[in-house]
Amino acid sequence: MQGTLDEVRPVSPALEAYTKGVLLNGLWKRTELSVRDRSLVTVAALIARIQTIEMPFHFALALDNGVKPAELSETITHLAFYSGWANAMSAVSVAKDVFHKRGVKQEQLPPAKDKTLPLNQEAEDKRAVSVAANLAATTPGLVQNTTDLLFLDLWLRPALAPRDRSLVTVSALIAAGQSAQIPYHLDRAMENGLTAVEAGEIVTHVAFYAGWPNAFSAAAVVKDVLEKRPK
Amino acid sequence: MQGTLDEVRPVSPALEAYTKGVLLNGLWKRTELSVRDRSLVTVAALIARIQTIEMPFHFALALDNGVKPAELSETITHLAFYSGWANAMSAVSVAKDVFHKRGVKQEQLPPAKDKTLPLNQEAEDKRAVSVAANLAATTPGLVQNTTDLLFLDLWLRPALAPRDRSLVTVSALIAAGQSAQIPYHLDRAMENGLTAVEAGEIVTHVAFYAGWPNAFSAAAVVKDVLEKRPK
Amino acid sequence: MQGTLDEVRPVSPALEAYTKGVLLNGLWKRTELSVRDRSLVTVAALIARIQTIEMPFHFALALDNGVKPAELSETITHLAFYSGWANAMSAVSVAKDVFHKRGVKQEQLPPAKDKTLPLNQEAEDKRAVSVAANLAATTPGLVQNTTDLLFLDLWLRPALAPRDRSLVTVSALIAAGQSAQIPYHLDRAMENGLTAVEAGEIVTHVAFYAGWPNAFSAAAVVKDVLEKRPK
Repeated sequence: MQGTLDEVRPVSPALEAYTKGVLLNGLWKRTELSVRDRSLVTVAALIARIQTIEMPFHFALALDNGVKPAELSETITHLAFYSGWANAMSAVSVAKDVFHKRGVKQEQLPPAKDKTLPLNQEAEDKRAVSVAANLAATTPGLVQNTTDLLFLDLWLRPALAPRDRSLVTVSALIAAGQSAQIPYHLDRAMENGLTAVEAGEIVTHVAFYAGWPNAFSAAAVVKDVLEKRPK
Repeated sequence: MQGTLDEVRPVSPALEAYTKGVLLNGLWKRTELSVRDRSLVTVAALIARIQTIEMPFHFALALDNGVKPAELSETITHLAFYSGWANAMSAVSVAKDVFHKRGVKQEQLPPAKDKTLPLNQEAEDKRAVSVAANLAATTPGLVQNTTDLLFLDLWLRPALAPRDRSLVTVSALIAAGQSAQIPYHLDRAMENGLTAVEAGEIVTHVAFYAGWPNAFSAAAVVKDVLEKRPK
Repeated sequence: MQGTLDEVRPVSPALEAYTKGVLLNGLWKRTELSVRDRSLVTVAALIARIQTIEMPFHFALALDNGVKPAELSETITHLAFYSGWANAMSAVSVAKDVFHKRGVKQEQLPPAKDKTLPLNQEAEDKRAVSVAANLAATTPGLVQNTTDLLFLDLWLRPALAPRDRSLVTVSALIAAGQSAQIPYHLDRAMENGLTAVEAGEIVTHVAFYAGWPNAFSAAAVVKDVLEKRPK
């Protein structure tokens, strides 16, 4: 960001001040989310929106904040499916330099084929039946791939804890304005251990990186989901 | 993609494996859409989202898969209106190199002013009356331009068959998450010859390039449109 | 654009002709919005969508069309909050070169901390109470930041007139497809002096820069807002 901040001054002293103040010394100091989680949320938002200009700073910061190289790698892999292949490829082109500078070795990265986390068969059956009932007749390929590639494969990879996988998924959804897909994934996130305070704070954090309008649209959905959950 | 794939390995061996496996040897081998159509769908998705990093590979692949230079040119022109002028300009900056390398000549490109395809006057009258009734009082410029520039001009250009013009339009809408505009254009696509199987498969294909959330939001709309159509 | 137009010809003579004709000699000549306002609308749309390829041309054109450097600077600052921090940073990286070429001096830019415009306390109380009632329980950080950073700070900065701040906000919302957030900001824009004709023409203008589908989704919302307002 320093390089970027030096560029900001000759364009907007106010934006420089807001960046140092309300963003870096304000938002990032709030305790409702750990800095490590804030980094994951930020990385997800940047990838979801192909905001490449901030990726070098935030990928490096994520590693400084305790995100493991394997977790950053797996976040990119995960978002290939949730944000789009080219979004992930844009992240790859930045991450390869960050990893190279830090001397990240191939054996630190999650293997292509890994052992799998245990499946919650009951929840998965429920999900698969519900999706199939709605969509199998008209988009059978999507339904099949969703089961085979996402829920029986990607989500079971141990390189990113289910709670963190949910964290980056929800963050990407908010950042991309995909409100309709938030309820399922926020519920799943909370089953995976995300707290209500953290959920609210993700929205607050993403407001800065994806703009207030996306945050407000998401806030209304998050409120509905949280209020419907058993206390 | 080879250049890109070599970059992927030091960041995510898993993403490299998914790209070679489920994407290139999975999705692209499915027979519900021809590879030529898959290329048009992919190109439209990339332009709709300004995913420039994948454009060089996929523009070249589109030509290899049977998309004519004139059709790629016209797809970019079409998406200036449907995705935004700067989206088209981003595509131009990539396509000019691809065309140059292939020795594409000016006379292979659609002329600025071309003869026009026959107009379905009845359908156009119906569309124009419906849009005007809704929007002429508050956004008269938009209503007039929609008639003059889109439906009495762009859509009648012969450089892209109406069915293919619909294909790229629907793909761009799904990729950009513009669900509200899908029903009109999917109906039009099917009037123009797209099949229900192809419609469903566009959603499956775009899932990979624009992310699962956009595909799921679109799938619900596609289902509604397909179920309402006369069998 | 000239540089860009030379690149367009070898890819699409039609797009070159549309750019010179219906866009630059058509849309931009319509009198429903001043060229200075059209520049603000365009700049906001480009930043909202990170359409960097057109930024150098349109940032320079905005200055030619009477947008002051301080206003362009403040538009970027404003959109950090409304479009996302990285969107603003992408604009900064272009604007710094444009400002440098024009010899824009630091003292021409809005200061980081400025005197504030008078607050409409009644309207702000109403807004704050309504937002808090809905969202304070689940996203308290967002609610607090919205009050402190946006409505008691950013919106009161004199570097951009409230009417122009509304103009760029509404333009960014339309360009990003954020229909749900248009009603509040369009109402506010009209309280700040935007006319109904201008509101409709913003939609027409953004159609070209963010694509017809975003314009159509916005047009339906704009119609509702305009029809509900007292005549």
